[in-house]
Amino acid sequence: MNLSPLQKARYEYVPKLPGMLRHGIAEIAVKKGEATTSVADQEKIAELFPNTYGEPEVTFEKGQNTSVVKKQVVGVILSGGQAPGGHNVVSGLYDALKATNKENVLIGFKGGPSGLIEDNFIVFDDEYMDQYRNTGGFDIIGSGRTKLETEEQFQIATEVCKKHGITAIVIIGGDDSNTNACVLAEYMAAHKTGVQVIGCPKTIDGDLKNEDIEISFGFDTATKTYSELIGNIERDCNSAKKYWHFIKVMGRSASHVALECALECQPNICLISEEVKAKKQSLSEIADYIADAVEKRAANGNNFGVVVIPEGVVEFVPEFSALINEINELLAGSKADAFNALESWTEKYAFIEKGLSKEAMAVFAILPQAIQQQLFLERDPHGNVQVSLIESEKLFAALVGDKLKARKAAGTYTGKYATQTHFFGYEGRCAFPSNFDADYCYSLGYNAFMLIQYGFNGYLSKVSNLSRPAEEWVAGGMPITKMMNIERRHGEDKPVIKKALVELDGKPFKYFEAHRDEWAVETSYTFPGAIQYYGPTEVCDLTTRTLALEQGK
Amino acid sequence: MNLSPLQKARYEYVPKLPGMLRHGIAEIAVKKGEATTSVADQEKIAELFPNTYGEPEVTFEKGQNTSVVKKQVVGVILSGGQAPGGHNVVSGLYDALKATNKENVLIGFKGGPSGLIEDNFIVFDDEYMDQYRNTGGFDIIGSGRTKLETEEQFQIATEVCKKHGITAIVIIGGDDSNTNACVLAEYMAAHKTGVQVIGCPKTIDGDLKNEDIEISFGFDTATKTYSELIGNIERDCNSAKKYWHFIKVMGRSASHVALECALECQPNICLISEEVKAKKQSLSEIADYIADAVEKRAANGNNFGVVVIPEGVVEFVPEFSALINEINELLAGSKADAFNALESWTEKYAFIEKGLSKEAMAVFAILPQAIQQQLFLERDPHGNVQVSLIESEKLFAALVGDKLKARKAAGTYTGKYATQTHFFGYEGRCAFPSNFDADYCYSLGYNAFMLIQYGFNGYLSKVSNLSRPAEEWVAGGMPITKMMNIERRHGEDKPVIKKALVELDGKPFKYFEAHRDEWAVETSYTFPGAIQYYGPTEVCDLTTRTLALEQGK
Repeated sequence: MNLSPLQKARYEYVPKLPGMLRHGIAEIAVKKGEATTSVADQEKIAELFPNTYGEPEVTFEKGQNTSVVKKQVVGVILSGGQAPGGHNVVSGLYDALKATNKENVLIGFKGGPSGLIEDNFIVFDDEYMDQYRNTGGFDIIGSGRTKLETEEQFQIATEVCKKHGITAIVIIGGDDSNTNACVLAEYMAAHKTGVQVIGCPKTIDGDLKNEDIEISFGFDTATKTYSELIGNIERDCNSAKKYWHFIKVMGRSASHVALECALECQPNICLISEEVKAKKQSLSEIADYIADAVEKRAANGNNFGVVVIPEGVVEFVPEFSALINEINELLAGSKADAFNALESWTEKYAFIEKGLSKEAMAVFAILPQAIQQQLFLERDPHGNVQVSLIESEKLFAALVGDKLKARKAAGTYTGKYATQTHFFGYEGRCAFPSNFDADYCYSLGYNAFMLIQYGFNGYLSKVSNLSRPAEEWVAGGMPITKMMNIERRHGEDKPVIKKALVELDGKPFKYFEAHRDEWAVETSYTFPGAIQYYGPTEVCDLTTRTLALEQGK
Repeated sequence: MNLSPLQKARYEYVPKLPGMLRHGIAEIAVKKGEATTSVADQEKIAELFPNTYGEPEVTFEKGQNTSVVKKQVVGVILSGGQAPGGHNVVSGLYDALKATNKENVLIGFKGGPSGLIEDNFIVFDDEYMDQYRNTGGFDIIGSGRTKLETEEQFQIATEVCKKHGITAIVIIGGDDSNTNACVLAEYMAAHKTGVQVIGCPKTIDGDLKNEDIEISFGFDTATKTYSELIGNIERDCNSAKKYWHFIKVMGRSASHVALECALECQPNICLISEEVKAKKQSLSEIADYIADAVEKRAANGNNFGVVVIPEGVVEFVPEFSALINEINELLAGSKADAFNALESWTEKYAFIEKGLSKEAMAVFAILPQAIQQQLFLERDPHGNVQVSLIESEKLFAALVGDKLKARKAAGTYTGKYATQTHFFGYEGRCAFPSNFDADYCYSLGYNAFMLIQYGFNGYLSKVSNLSRPAEEWVAGGMPITKMMNIERRHGEDKPVIKKALVELDGKPFKYFEAHRDEWAVETSYTFPGAIQYYGPTEVCDLTTRTLALEQGK
């Protein structure tokens, strides 16, 4: 293995634990708080989770460790998309487990939750663990998207646990994975298996967030990586002064990533999907909004700019969603055959024109041809439009171009308009975790073991007070049921962790809203640069602007 | 202005000078070497540059500064594409100039070489300069692509210089800009204007390189930024194990960037344009070469991988170049009208089929439709195909997919193949310069002033021994005429600096060649991570693998 100099150096990094966890395992006492209730639908959630509902919040503090001494065999699972710091959750868990008892065992199930069902595993030892400390990626055991949710899966999981003598499972995942962790915890308790289940909050999207989860891990590193690139492009943009750059960033369900990047980099424009939805904006309105900025900047001689777009934005445009639904309907089942039989795009276009409603066709007609074709030609195995493939950065670049042509014809705009497009997603999910994520994740893992050791089940590992130095962080746990409500999913009422969207009356958005008109016209770019792991603490250890604003900093 | 924590911290960075320049201006002596001759076409070059040809190499050393004391007014110009470190060339120049004589003046011409012709300038002072130290971008004075090459331009430039009392001009640019600097230097000498011209070697492409220029500035930072991203994607790729990522990196004329990224990251595949040309490879052969790796990896259960592609590669594929020429011919002038009059792509396709030779049509036919359409529908103002718009990362992803379909049908391949594509260029041109580029550029600028102070004209600022610590770097200058040969450009014989392509018998390519078969099949990814400015020297101060290999490290 050929290791980079940074990877070797990062092996030596010692993550910072919350102050209260720094006195050694023997000096970690538990303090139980009040009994909790779920954020909504309390009766239903209580009924669905009779064994894990209403448990108290837990905080650790310096004091005598009173946990029961027994051999722990812990299984750990990485679930869903990669997020920087996953390896540190595992190393924190491993270190606490081994520090408690050298005989304890940490088993990693490979390739995500399916590893548990297929009993595909490795047993961690020091040598293996040390290769992954403070590194990015989930390659330590791999990840996967299988959902653990059926009774049958739970039965198999129980058998696998019994075989290994597993006393606890730690599931590292997003909102769905933690929901499933909670259901599994309830199952394990109801069936008196003796297996505890603990969750850890992971997602670069930032949408696993509530009064108990200040930030999901990976969000800090991913947004810093995207902000590095956006800042570099801004600087290029302001040096060359000849392009409008349209930059799409990951985040399909929520726009936390785009918003954080905007707070870090101060681009001319940033779209926020939640606002688009709330204001029921049309594609044309959004394009006009951007074109207004292009026009104003051109009037000042600035024919360049940067637009940040959240990945999911088109799905939040009501008229566009309606169009997608009509296309899915138009091509459902055997109806697609007639369409597929047509040879030329001209014929297909006529078919589309006949099949879509007038409203949907009006939206379809303004799309660039490449996107029109993509909507109809590249469909998923169920025949549905693959919304995630839509290159919305190119879509908006083109729609704005159309607006500007019209304005030029009308004589209101005389600037130049040339574009470049970018999409940043995979670039940030596996970066070396920032010091913040390295510390936070290690603490989450370490803390998860303390929850196990003290016998808790159906809890989320919780570390808070995160905008302060690690010394002041607060470690503990929260029943996952507390975060749940009932939502309609695939025609069924289901208990789920509420997804956190960008709140339009929240402080981060309010700050953005108060400044964006100025940023749109002026060149107010900020250049965060690459993530630094060494050097001044204000460069290396600060977490996101979003968290700072939320916590009133 | 809202400054990032890193930007504030970088203001405090003190760039490292070569040891011999560290004793203060009063202790810099000059040592002249042998008279030089051009690398080729000596007679012609000597004839074209009677006043600047044959001058000696120059090295500085510790000793008494014997330069003539006079007030210097220096103009500086940034030319062409952005490269990290440009601001440090200016700050090095400014600091040496002010250290020599507080009355000296540095003038920056804005927006590239056109700033000199248009007399569009600023005068530097400490406060302005300090805002740009150790930062990326060319926004300090902007850049541009106007070429200074005509007699008329030179006359205007002379007038502007006279107006300001300019004694020297420093041109920071790539091979063409330095060629023009040399022509201007000759003009200034021939016309006894008293204005000296000094060049500085800039380009992220790395193709301004020869026995006197070990590396052009910006190459180090840009390739480190791309390598950060490629490494992150590799780690994601090896965690999710479900995509082949096709990553295009900047570099149209040469593949130094792609090669350096491959040496840093060890992807499964890296194409090298110079090799494609030398071996006269077809698109189909290249696709088969990649498909072979996909197939072998699939046989080991690895349905994922990373392919790095240099931006210009399709232009190096002989059959593709021939196709482009035929298309340009087919649509030349009024011939395009008949094509444009056709309504449907089916009709257009028939027109194309009729118009292209059988060989060209065979190449055209294997292209994905989106690229076929792009070749015909998006043409430059002269009606030519816009080769730079071709998304070759998508092209190869699709061509390999076609190959795999055929192999699947033939039963030799049973894997899964899903792709993601990326293009990295603008992301790296304006990053905060690495310590290497910050030091190197500052030294180039500082040294440029010493060349001015000692009266040299038509020289390139030269700093060498760069794979050693800065203390051991050697500062001096080389007549630009030494690097020149005669090349045919637009039907004329012109004296130009020879562009450096990747040498297929050079050590960097040889190293790559010796390892690539293993990298193709194994997962040998290396993860360089983000550029570090603080911390261990082996993490922060090392320059490229290419230079290390060239210098036998």
